[in-house]
Amino acid sequence: MSNPTIGVTAPAGFSASGVTAGLKASGNPDLAIVRNDGPLHHVAAVFTSNRVAAAPVHWSRQVVGDGRADAVLLNSGGANACTGPEGFANTHASAEHAAKVLGIGSGDIVVCSTGLIGEQLPMDKIIPGIDAAAAALGSGSEFDGGGAAATAIMTTDTVSKQAGFAGTGYSIGAMAKGAGMLAPGLATMLVVITTDAVVEPAGLEAALRGATRVSFDRADSDGCMSTNDTVVLMASGASGTVPDPAEFATGLKDLCIDLALQLIRDAEGAAHDITIRTFNAATEQDAEDVSRTVSRSNLFKTAIFGQDPNWGRVLSAVGTTKAVFEADELNVSINGVQICRNGGVGDDRNLVDLTGREVLVEIDLNAGDAEAAIWTNDLTHDYVHENSAYSS
Amino acid sequence: MSNPTIGVTAPAGFSASGVTAGLKASGNPDLAIVRNDGPLHHVAAVFTSNRVAAAPVHWSRQVVGDGRADAVLLNSGGANACTGPEGFANTHASAEHAAKVLGIGSGDIVVCSTGLIGEQLPMDKIIPGIDAAAAALGSGSEFDGGGAAATAIMTTDTVSKQAGFAGTGYSIGAMAKGAGMLAPGLATMLVVITTDAVVEPAGLEAALRGATRVSFDRADSDGCMSTNDTVVLMASGASGTVPDPAEFATGLKDLCIDLALQLIRDAEGAAHDITIRTFNAATEQDAEDVSRTVSRSNLFKTAIFGQDPNWGRVLSAVGTTKAVFEADELNVSINGVQICRNGGVGDDRNLVDLTGREVLVEIDLNAGDAEAAIWTNDLTHDYVHENSAYSS
Repeated sequence: MSNPTIGVTAPAGFSASGVTAGLKASGNPDLAIVRNDGPLHHVAAVFTSNRVAAAPVHWSRQVVGDGRADAVLLNSGGANACTGPEGFANTHASAEHAAKVLGIGSGDIVVCSTGLIGEQLPMDKIIPGIDAAAAALGSGSEFDGGGAAATAIMTTDTVSKQAGFAGTGYSIGAMAKGAGMLAPGLATMLVVITTDAVVEPAGLEAALRGATRVSFDRADSDGCMSTNDTVVLMASGASGTVPDPAEFATGLKDLCIDLALQLIRDAEGAAHDITIRTFNAATEQDAEDVSRTVSRSNLFKTAIFGQDPNWGRVLSAVGTTKAVFEADELNVSINGVQICRNGGVGDDRNLVDLTGREVLVEIDLNAGDAEAAIWTNDLTHDYVHENSAYSS
Repeated sequence: MSNPTIGVTAPAGFSASGVTAGLKASGNPDLAIVRNDGPLHHVAAVFTSNRVAAAPVHWSRQVVGDGRADAVLLNSGGANACTGPEGFANTHASAEHAAKVLGIGSGDIVVCSTGLIGEQLPMDKIIPGIDAAAAALGSGSEFDGGGAAATAIMTTDTVSKQAGFAGTGYSIGAMAKGAGMLAPGLATMLVVITTDAVVEPAGLEAALRGATRVSFDRADSDGCMSTNDTVVLMASGASGTVPDPAEFATGLKDLCIDLALQLIRDAEGAAHDITIRTFNAATEQDAEDVSRTVSRSNLFKTAIFGQDPNWGRVLSAVGTTKAVFEADELNVSINGVQICRNGGVGDDRNLVDLTGREVLVEIDLNAGDAEAAIWTNDLTHDYVHENSAYSS
């Protein structure tokens, strides 16, 4: 069912489609196009900071450099990473073909890929897939193009992810893929965000960087960074509304947090969704560093899997950071029970209930008034299974 | 059986013991003393850099500050970490009692503890345990004091760890505890090294720092740092030999590497012992950073568990470092098969045999002539089980 308030075709001026090109052995949809029909074609994007970036990331960085993009071409079933000059040529050829059938310039087509690393894309399937996707482009309630696109970019995701924000006289819509605990080579997070607001590329860029910094950058399922991560924001201007910058920024931020939490919650191998909030920090950076360090402690993550409120492992991780704190002034609460007080034993650990899926760890640094949270998952047998068994 | 060439009582001038104080529920030995009988009582030590350090670490840092120590008192069955002022008072009281029964100054007694974090030591068991350990002190082949001490400091270790080096006219002996993949709160590595060589504290310090930098610092089983890690080196001078500094440094380094590899090999939850060697790096630091980053990738570690030579995960991890390299100049070999060449597909991945316990990953950065290796383990179901099930 189409939901006119979420997804990339919720804002006016966008059409989308998702088709089966045959890249996935499962036969599920695997190729999508999101087209910006204008009148504006403004774009901003952020990409993985991984220096081993996939061919489509190299391509798309160039595309968005001038602030204009007319479409995003996405495929699952292959990451096109570590594929050398042939991989880049394949991305280029895909964009050229899409440009021809869509009647736009290839240099205005962002390309995103996700799937296994180190394998060439089957171009004999990609090219007819692009034809099919272009033919299927649709928008509005009569055809849920946004939903079809969101489905076609899934890999180990168990549900498609979409979100929306209703601004004053404009809207924002989005789709995302990524499944928290990440199967081999499928670690990619892809996000396409659309808006019919009238926003210049510089404004899109600023709003997008501000939003991703406190959303996707703080979802840290297993500490591993993909070669393909891409977040694209396109503005069609079709609403004619110039948004209040603060409202637009806040709406975009909330939408990105919504999607980031959807990613964490779809962690297939996970048994717990964990929010690690550090507060009373000297700086927001300190708070983020502390939360992220704890989120990457395998000892902490396995303890939560075992429903063990092991605050000693939290403190051990905190102690490896450079944040401002004194060890004997640290307090830690798990799900509301302050089990560590002044760096030592606090309330009864048996009061902590870890049977539910949601876990809130709160770390009080007693060093200021800044705070930040990181969202992560526990480390489980299923994580080990999924990530060891996939490609062998 | 006593082996006169390894262990802390192999060098002349040292006696040791290990007894059951009743700290462990298992009834296994859990308290040890290593005494330096002189004539020299020189010492150097390195401690965990974790800012949440255990009470005995705070105590022992002060003890070794003047370059003199007469004994090391060690217990398993409790880490005495995150135990506040009471915990420090307990360490102090233990040292005072040991000083009284040994007839030495409490300020010359290094204290080491290992076990669960956040619980006070049962002093009603520690004090009589010290009496028993002092009474049992022995050396030489008639009584294996070194072996008894090595056994008493074990926690999740399946075997006790000792090593030795025969220098020209002197010797070095050592014991260690730590079990690679680390059970909850039992992550501590404790190492006591003894020598009968005549070496001043400054010389011990320099040799020890040089040795630990390329041994224990490069054993990175799961990326988690203990609150209690301690490496102590004591010199009795009983041989009367002033060693050649280069020979002493090399012997100490090799002994520490021997112990570090024993720690990695005793990783209970591990199925593979992995050496990650990075070479042709611009600097040794680059090489170490790259190897360590790969060693901490859960995706890489689960792949090795699954006997999957997933070089894409190696490259993904390398790409997150700041080391000097170009992505299209990276080569990766696993167990001798170069499966990644120039950042892309290399030889047939099916040629890689990962059925054995030893795995060698070699990463060629093509950026210089420096190299470094990190020793780690894979991430397995048993790791998750042991670290989630222990305290709950």
